[in-house]
Amino acid sequence: MISTVILGTGNVAKHLFEAFMSQNGIEVIQVYGRSLKALSYFNNQINTSSDLSNIKEADIYLVAISDDAISEVSKFLVDKRGLIVHTSGSIPMNALPNKNRCGVFYPLQTFNAHRKVNFKEIPICIEAGNDQDYELLNALASAISDKVVQIDTDQRKVLHLAAVFANNFTNHMYHIAHEICIQNDVPFELLLPLINETATKIQDLSPLDAQTGPARRNDKGTFGKHLAQLKSKKHNNIYTLLSKSIQKTYGKKL
Amino acid sequence: MISTVILGTGNVAKHLFEAFMSQNGIEVIQVYGRSLKALSYFNNQINTSSDLSNIKEADIYLVAISDDAISEVSKFLVDKRGLIVHTSGSIPMNALPNKNRCGVFYPLQTFNAHRKVNFKEIPICIEAGNDQDYELLNALASAISDKVVQIDTDQRKVLHLAAVFANNFTNHMYHIAHEICIQNDVPFELLLPLINETATKIQDLSPLDAQTGPARRNDKGTFGKHLAQLKSKKHNNIYTLLSKSIQKTYGKKL
Repeated sequence: MISTVILGTGNVAKHLFEAFMSQNGIEVIQVYGRSLKALSYFNNQINTSSDLSNIKEADIYLVAISDDAISEVSKFLVDKRGLIVHTSGSIPMNALPNKNRCGVFYPLQTFNAHRKVNFKEIPICIEAGNDQDYELLNALASAISDKVVQIDTDQRKVLHLAAVFANNFTNHMYHIAHEICIQNDVPFELLLPLINETATKIQDLSPLDAQTGPARRNDKGTFGKHLAQLKSKKHNNIYTLLSKSIQKTYGKKL
Repeated sequence: MISTVILGTGNVAKHLFEAFMSQNGIEVIQVYGRSLKALSYFNNQINTSSDLSNIKEADIYLVAISDDAISEVSKFLVDKRGLIVHTSGSIPMNALPNKNRCGVFYPLQTFNAHRKVNFKEIPICIEAGNDQDYELLNALASAISDKVVQIDTDQRKVLHLAAVFANNFTNHMYHIAHEICIQNDVPFELLLPLINETATKIQDLSPLDAQTGPARRNDKGTFGKHLAQLKSKKHNNIYTLLSKSIQKTYGKKL
């Protein structure tokens, strides 16, 4: 049995809490949060605390809070014997107190409230200061995911940056498509099968080979017509920059 | 039984050919293409021709060729009694010969060679010059898809433009994520579950609500670190422009 304390009440904390609670081999003994209101989500099931000087003893402390609070909050754990890990993609392991046993437990996924995810398929990138702690973290991660990988701080930073393109910017492309549809009274839902296929096909094909469209074909006529159609300067700038970037990728110029 | 001639040998032509051939109520009586090599794909199954003056009589002619060739090629069909339709998102219906019965048959999907798609789920946007031709086109489209919608030329142009963001630019985001991973020796495959979830969650959630990440959170620390990490000026420009656009969407400034 691995005992854990979760520090944080956001989406990552909630999803980890649910995943751990569904496993017999993992015990969540406490959840810490600043806000009593946010803690109410956990209250009925588990001990909660809003006092950092009142954290219980556990095998692993998961600091699942915003990046800029990780260093400060983890300082309150310096007297703990357990392994302290954060869940951030962009923060180095050594942001945690260097007198403690430290590690990182980074689930590479986007979490929204009220949306269930299948943890078995989520890569969990782990890092630890020594082999023994790595094995402990590996046991925790493997209990909820089939894709546990050892990733050091530099590699994790790369993944986090790449994820901004693959997830955040991709979603923003969906948003602009949505805006264009709404502004012109066309149902956005018609694009959903296309969006689905775009994501699905790169599970087999490299994105380089999967690229289609006017910029890839160097279709100047469509490029000009699309720019004329775009009423927003913001959309216009994005269309131009990304089209040129695609052209450059395939060795052509618009 | 609806008889059809397909003009074109590219991905759209091939996928339509396969979809039509699998239906009892549709007959493909000929495929036209300029290149004998490209026609060899169809040769064994069907009559083919590389001569535009030798096109057979049919109920519907599907002009599935590159946008800039549609007007020219369709001129060779002026003496035909059948309905002439093109399959392009960005070309108006009246680019077809105005003495003929004309329409548009636009499948809103991305087609790659060697990749099967499920036509039942692909929206087919149709337009015709009169009710009778619309019904004929509707019968053809409904035979292969469960999502047939009436979309006029202006609406179709909007969809085509929105599709460039939702598909072409999205795939380019995947490509940049892929480049960043390769350049730094990190396996891109780790991002596939994230990419999948990003596309899947907007089937229920609006992209506006689904947005996560540093730009949405106005996380200046991560913004600065990511810019420092990006070695390519092209990636840097794209990161900056899209982050600012996300910030603007949520009413914040970086």
